[in-house]
Amino acid sequence: MTKVTIWNEYLHERRNEAVRHIYPQGIHGAIAQGLQGLGDFKVRTATLEEPEHGLSQAVLDDTEVLLWWGHLAHDQVSEAVVERVQLRVLSGMGLIVLHSGHYARVFKRLMGTFCSLKWREAGERERLWNLRPDHPILQGIPEYFELPQEEMYSERFDIPEPEELLMISWFQGGEVFRSACTWRRGHGRVFYFRPGHETFPTYHHPHILRILANACVWARQRVNLDVTQAPNQAPLEPL
Amino acid sequence: MTKVTIWNEYLHERRNEAVRHIYPQGIHGAIAQGLQGLGDFKVRTATLEEPEHGLSQAVLDDTEVLLWWGHLAHDQVSEAVVERVQLRVLSGMGLIVLHSGHYARVFKRLMGTFCSLKWREAGERERLWNLRPDHPILQGIPEYFELPQEEMYSERFDIPEPEELLMISWFQGGEVFRSACTWRRGHGRVFYFRPGHETFPTYHHPHILRILANACVWARQRVNLDVTQAPNQAPLEPL
Amino acid sequence: MTKVTIWNEYLHERRNEAVRHIYPQGIHGAIAQGLQGLGDFKVRTATLEEPEHGLSQAVLDDTEVLLWWGHLAHDQVSEAVVERVQLRVLSGMGLIVLHSGHYARVFKRLMGTFCSLKWREAGERERLWNLRPDHPILQGIPEYFELPQEEMYSERFDIPEPEELLMISWFQGGEVFRSACTWRRGHGRVFYFRPGHETFPTYHHPHILRILANACVWARQRVNLDVTQAPNQAPLEPL
Amino acid sequence: MTKVTIWNEYLHERRNEAVRHIYPQGIHGAIAQGLQGLGDFKVRTATLEEPEHGLSQAVLDDTEVLLWWGHLAHDQVSEAVVERVQLRVLSGMGLIVLHSGHYARVFKRLMGTFCSLKWREAGERERLWNLRPDHPILQGIPEYFELPQEEMYSERFDIPEPEELLMISWFQGGEVFRSACTWRRGHGRVFYFRPGHETFPTYHHPHILRILANACVWARQRVNLDVTQAPNQAPLEPL
Repeated sequence: MTKVTIWNEYLHERRNEAVRHIYPQGIHGAIAQGLQGLGDFKVRTATLEEPEHGLSQAVLDDTEVLLWWGHLAHDQVSEAVVERVQLRVLSGMGLIVLHSGHYARVFKRLMGTFCSLKWREAGERERLWNLRPDHPILQGIPEYFELPQEEMYSERFDIPEPEELLMISWFQGGEVFRSACTWRRGHGRVFYFRPGHETFPTYHHPHILRILANACVWARQRVNLDVTQAPNQAPLEPL
Repeated sequence: MTKVTIWNEYLHERRNEAVRHIYPQGIHGAIAQGLQGLGDFKVRTATLEEPEHGLSQAVLDDTEVLLWWGHLAHDQVSEAVVERVQLRVLSGMGLIVLHSGHYARVFKRLMGTFCSLKWREAGERERLWNLRPDHPILQGIPEYFELPQEEMYSERFDIPEPEELLMISWFQGGEVFRSACTWRRGHGRVFYFRPGHETFPTYHHPHILRILANACVWARQRVNLDVTQAPNQAPLEPL
Repeated sequence: MTKVTIWNEYLHERRNEAVRHIYPQGIHGAIAQGLQGLGDFKVRTATLEEPEHGLSQAVLDDTEVLLWWGHLAHDQVSEAVVERVQLRVLSGMGLIVLHSGHYARVFKRLMGTFCSLKWREAGERERLWNLRPDHPILQGIPEYFELPQEEMYSERFDIPEPEELLMISWFQGGEVFRSACTWRRGHGRVFYFRPGHETFPTYHHPHILRILANACVWARQRVNLDVTQAPNQAPLEPL
Repeated sequence: MTKVTIWNEYLHERRNEAVRHIYPQGIHGAIAQGLQGLGDFKVRTATLEEPEHGLSQAVLDDTEVLLWWGHLAHDQVSEAVVERVQLRVLSGMGLIVLHSGHYARVFKRLMGTFCSLKWREAGERERLWNLRPDHPILQGIPEYFELPQEEMYSERFDIPEPEELLMISWFQGGEVFRSACTWRRGHGRVFYFRPGHETFPTYHHPHILRILANACVWARQRVNLDVTQAPNQAPLEPL
């Protein structure tokens, strides 16, 4: 059983009827529902406007994998929560960053880069190519699949060299993007996954949900280790 | 010609006579002097207690490679300067982080990790092994060399997997350490180099100075690119 | 259940009484026995002098993870078997290369490098430092452990940059070594693990056996994919 | 001054009038001519049908960077020359592998993988995206550029994870490809660069030639180190 917390800004769905129509329970709700049936998950959700954004120390301590969707309000996420999430990742919690979460403060903090990219909202076709059919995150995923309408993200994406590049997107308008990337930070695993614009039903797509379920299992580490200590060490050999 | 700025906290040398005896012009002064004769460098220094820690936007804009030595006062480096340095690295400035600078806020910010380690001040022997005699940073360096007395740093060092691991240290007391590591962040190159405790004459050692001179040349990128823009992109193909 | 084949040259044990005393069933036998009780493994062994070195296509097709110990007779391993093992790794079989297997033809073929190193047989102390307590291969392993007597291997080790560096060895005589490294080749995972000289009881050590058992689980991929095809692809979009 | 040898199979140009029309001096001749004026190169060429394929030990010893174009006759390259080139790369010679050279024996030997891919000859548009405007190989190259007609190569490309991924290609027919990748093997640098089908004037394109010239400078290491020795090492510390 994997303990998953899905964090969502949860603003678009409440402000915009078209988005609400696609995600009546919020993006977090759609993902939570989608994960059921795809594995042994204990799912919790948290949103921006809850106290401490729903991410108290107790919640994080009980979270093995955190998913993050944000867009409009990255700046409203408090420094305290950013640092708390960062430290939990370094201690071993998995982090899955979704779509516009490329600009989330927690992602930027863990990457050390600005995480900028080019974009276009034109509802065009995206085709995601599978570079790693061997990878646990891509089990059950074909050599490529298409999303009929998505926001476009284009290179150059300002990230550190991914440790594993799992998928590259082809866009109808002529661009490419590193859409599924992994890194390790401290004892934690980080996965960035590009698709997921709020005006399209991306989080109802079976391949997308399969990838997220796989990623939750992959990102779950069985450790919880303190990285904040810098102990004085006695010699192990005579000096 | 490479424009180098050497930043030093410059506290130990003023507070402790033993350190001042080794580095009468400060650690920054010793490195500045050491670089002369090892290449075509225009060297500037900057210290903590100068206005803006000596790292105004104008200074950074005129810096191609920044060296960083700090220990006692990481917390006194202002957030504004941390962000300014980070952005300059992402734009292409090289950064060379020395010894206890593993805990410098600029290094932690770029790595995304806590950067903790184990340590011991016992003045023991360190032997640095050269894993990359092909690498520009290690030209002129033998297969190993020894520092008769150094502070010990031990694994586990909480850093992202280095993109290049250039040297590993053997310590007399029984430990090992990844002592020379490189990463890229944005358009900038980052080099961490372990030796350099203030109570030992490490920065007078010819191999240490050769490595720093080589690293300045290596870290110098000929670009200055803005990473902070996320432009809307018109389609390149018909939609 | 993981299907493991342990390959051993099996010459030292038959020619040298001291080695036979430590490994009366051969190194392969000791590892096979050691894996029992540490997980759900179906273990098979194979040796140099069997037909096809015990590695027929049928055996490899039924192998999920192959361990390899060789030393005296790397040159006697046939090209046909080298290519067969390489192709199975590329298709998804895990490979765990032990100690003097650094010079095994299958390892060199997969790395693309010469895999040379420095060495000394002096029965000295080795201390292995754990850089990755989060990693599946190192679960149950402390921050370091010691082998009272081992052959020394020293850098520079001529390998491609490891994708993950898990352990570094400290040697009493003054050297260091990257002792536990991983790479991916094709769809397969490769793990090199340094200790294991035939004149010492290394493969009876509980931490060594734990690492091998963990590595078997880690290296097991659930895929078997053909990498040898280069198909002509029809366009997915109008040209 | 960089000593460059351009190796070309040189069969298409002699057998096919259309190809000969584009490359009357052969692909090697076009590249050799193109490099003039783009840097300080001493260029030599070599072809399959010369004795030892034009790659005697003396020629390789006098080569700092080798370019490789092959397609029809990978199998006709002798094992002796494959091993000779591999060893020179491990000693520090740079290697630039072009287009269908993905299946060259020297490339496969250095990668350790099968290097398969999907392909289509339809003369479609390729757009190469620049992920690394900071990289020496891409100086002078815009954020993207287009080749009006090229052969298509598609993922999955069976290569080890590139150490640096410099460019990704978008194809009109709907595919993507990692078109510019670097690795290190031994002391040598390896660069794979996708474009260059013999029926199109790709090697007359100024951006392509600029990339090749930059890559020659980048791949040139100033070392020539023997990797084939595994010396017995005397202890540096008392045992």
